[in-house]
Amino acid sequence: MSLKRIDIITLFPAMADAVLAESMIGRAQRSGAVEIQIHNLRDWSKDKHNTVDDRPFGGGAGMLLKPEPLFDAIESLKTEDSTVIFLCPDGEQLGTPLVRDLAEHKHLILISGHYDGIDQRVRDMLVDREISIGDYVLTNGTLPALVLVDCVCRYIPGVLGEEKSLTQDSFHDSLLGFPQFTRPAEFRGVAVPEILLSGDHKAVERWRKEEQINKTRERRPDLLDKQPE
Amino acid sequence: MSLKRIDIITLFPAMADAVLAESMIGRAQRSGAVEIQIHNLRDWSKDKHNTVDDRPFGGGAGMLLKPEPLFDAIESLKTEDSTVIFLCPDGEQLGTPLVRDLAEHKHLILISGHYDGIDQRVRDMLVDREISIGDYVLTNGTLPALVLVDCVCRYIPGVLGEEKSLTQDSFHDSLLGFPQFTRPAEFRGVAVPEILLSGDHKAVERWRKEEQINKTRERRPDLLDKQPE
Repeated sequence: MSLKRIDIITLFPAMADAVLAESMIGRAQRSGAVEIQIHNLRDWSKDKHNTVDDRPFGGGAGMLLKPEPLFDAIESLKTEDSTVIFLCPDGEQLGTPLVRDLAEHKHLILISGHYDGIDQRVRDMLVDREISIGDYVLTNGTLPALVLVDCVCRYIPGVLGEEKSLTQDSFHDSLLGFPQFTRPAEFRGVAVPEILLSGDHKAVERWRKEEQINKTRERRPDLLDKQPE
Repeated sequence: MSLKRIDIITLFPAMADAVLAESMIGRAQRSGAVEIQIHNLRDWSKDKHNTVDDRPFGGGAGMLLKPEPLFDAIESLKTEDSTVIFLCPDGEQLGTPLVRDLAEHKHLILISGHYDGIDQRVRDMLVDREISIGDYVLTNGTLPALVLVDCVCRYIPGVLGEEKSLTQDSFHDSLLGFPQFTRPAEFRGVAVPEILLSGDHKAVERWRKEEQINKTRERRPDLLDKQPE
């Protein structure tokens, strides 16, 4: 089974639309490989000012997303095949294994927060998974939702032009990528490594693997502990 | 010293424009707190097809960004106050300490790659720092550049409405955030914790700190080793 539909609930639908219209994600949508719908949380607000936020109980700076519009939004989109994901800095960390796993879900509903958070009852009662894209804080959750959509869509069959691209990725086999060079063969006095011009494919492959291992050892020794072999 | 200017070099200027126009980042720009300029890499291409990519030496799937347009773009934007950053999955991991550090730089030039990478000579000869937003791979580097801009801008004085918001962040003091609740006090049979309605600010503060420590211990014990005290 692979991913068929993604719904994004956000306060910034124009931001999400612009990102989805361009690049690979746009291609994925137009090809019919996946259906992505953007929803404005304010459409589920019930007052004439389209209020979706309120002050926190117990005091403190900032505003929170109220429970009612989020409950209504999620419940109107949810089916028995849905996984509801809240993007937040204190969630499970996104990484390639989790990305692959999400690409096998049929329907994802992504909630992007804003202000200083959302009412905890939404997280406790409706959210299936809380996911963080990294150990930093953003002004809202729309960019994290789009980051998740972009990397998950790469694993939907037919989205990337050449399937092979995935096996050259950083984190494939828990290694970082290898150095890449294109024309001109010499640029500002710096030549590309001779081996890449040799035509010896086995030697090129060996060199690339060595470079990957060296770079991973130097920059991210923690990844080597996760090596499959 | 704090950040005054950010230049983003991308193949998707419309995507970046739409994101920057909305949310806090737009407010940061309009207030004059920081100047952010988006540049289309194709403007530095010299042929009539605006080519910016080429095939990799040594074979393999995908295309690479050529060195010439990137060299020309970076060199035309660079001053002695610039820090040139390439967003890539094999870079240094973005986290709150690095975000704070970047907010002290005067001028950031962000290079967002596309296709299967960029010519290594750009990385070796012009890039000051390589930064990754997380252990996953995206179809292009524009979203990571925007993620970096968003979280760095939060640390520019005057961008966030209330300075206090920063000290409530996840990762402040190396702890995750605390649960937040807003009205109604009871929703679908679930009441907010009584202590938040008590009006006892000291007790609320203690409860929040305990919740932060418990959540961090449960979800991210690795962060507790980084505690300042």
